[in-house]
Amino acid sequence: MRLFELCGEDKNLTFSPFVWRTKMALAHKGLAYEKVPCNFTNKEAFAQSGSKTVPVIEDGGVWVSDSWDIACYLEDNYKDSPSLFGGDAGRGLALFLNNWAGPHLILPMFHILAPDIPQYLTTVDAEYFRSSREKFFGHPIDELLPHKEKNMERFKKAISPIRATLKAQDFISGNSPAYGDYIIFGAYQWARQVGSIDLLEGEKYIAPWFEKMLDMYDGLGRGAKLAVRD
Amino acid sequence: MRLFELCGEDKNLTFSPFVWRTKMALAHKGLAYEKVPCNFTNKEAFAQSGSKTVPVIEDGGVWVSDSWDIACYLEDNYKDSPSLFGGDAGRGLALFLNNWAGPHLILPMFHILAPDIPQYLTTVDAEYFRSSREKFFGHPIDELLPHKEKNMERFKKAISPIRATLKAQDFISGNSPAYGDYIIFGAYQWARQVGSIDLLEGEKYIAPWFEKMLDMYDGLGRGAKLAVRD
Repeated sequence: MRLFELCGEDKNLTFSPFVWRTKMALAHKGLAYEKVPCNFTNKEAFAQSGSKTVPVIEDGGVWVSDSWDIACYLEDNYKDSPSLFGGDAGRGLALFLNNWAGPHLILPMFHILAPDIPQYLTTVDAEYFRSSREKFFGHPIDELLPHKEKNMERFKKAISPIRATLKAQDFISGNSPAYGDYIIFGAYQWARQVGSIDLLEGEKYIAPWFEKMLDMYDGLGRGAKLAVRD
Repeated sequence: MRLFELCGEDKNLTFSPFVWRTKMALAHKGLAYEKVPCNFTNKEAFAQSGSKTVPVIEDGGVWVSDSWDIACYLEDNYKDSPSLFGGDAGRGLALFLNNWAGPHLILPMFHILAPDIPQYLTTVDAEYFRSSREKFFGHPIDELLPHKEKNMERFKKAISPIRATLKAQDFISGNSPAYGDYIIFGAYQWARQVGSIDLLEGEKYIAPWFEKMLDMYDGLGRGAKLAVRD
């Protein structure tokens, strides 16, 4: 199996929150794979998938893209290894969480992280990142900087269900970690790798959960390369 | 078993979104019960539970309050009837959805519905409702009225994960309805019974799901009394 992932100028700095979902899912399933780091502007390696974004996997000639579709593919094709969803209701509700995470976790987080990112990209990628995200936000990403406090407040409000859930139980998915945990882990890992603000400060319930997640699968998350600020 | 539920001036107008979760859960489990309608300001009937809010159930001398705790009690004590959660991961993620629904579904909905409610309550209840909710909002509930459009916009944004999930699958909980669906059903049923605005207008994916939910269990939801506006 091959996993196509996003990297910075440093090929070992692989920080996409969506790719992290897939990496944790592959580890959960105990599957080995070859990593193929790709820049934002270098999509030829996985062109056959028809996707313009990572994660993409190629599994014996089968191409699958989109982190959710990859999770379902792994669940349905590797039934003998531990389940990512724990049954139909677990899969259904994990999709709800997945659909929540885009606009209500990743997006508020991106308002805080976006200005931190281009410094770690190749010159070509940084230019692409700045112009595509300027189009998305309707203004240059650096204009987010003066609103950091307000954006932080919005983020802290948005994640209240994560906080309340981890106050009541060890993992988002109940007694043991599963795909729901990986969705949220990916976001905080992204922030840990490239962000300049500690989003877990004061998070009595989320921070200890994140530490446990970093240690899973022989420290897969903890061992990840962190961006080195100038 | 007895279910203590909230009613308006009309004892048959029982509209609490939290009680609806429990009613659907009891129907899912196929359990029979006696209904005990209570006003906002009449809590003696279930005082033994130690709770000041409904739903409360009394099951052969065992008192359980809080819709989530009731769901867990039913799941753990009626194992032979259909599961509300579909396993540990399903229960874990249903708690996430439950924690999401309070601040991100019920609360934005309440900003729209609150001014509609007192007209259906007893005089004493209406006074209690107005003064307690004024304390909560920091202003009289009627001051929400001029902001209906903005609050509607906020609500429509908040529910994007419901919309996206029901676009992809038949039920919030996957292929068949379970507790996650009842959490969301309760909110829309509340709006259907006492609200003056159709919150499902234009909802291509949520509206057909809600119709299916209304028909379940011999039309339990569809048969519920609706408020009659003056």
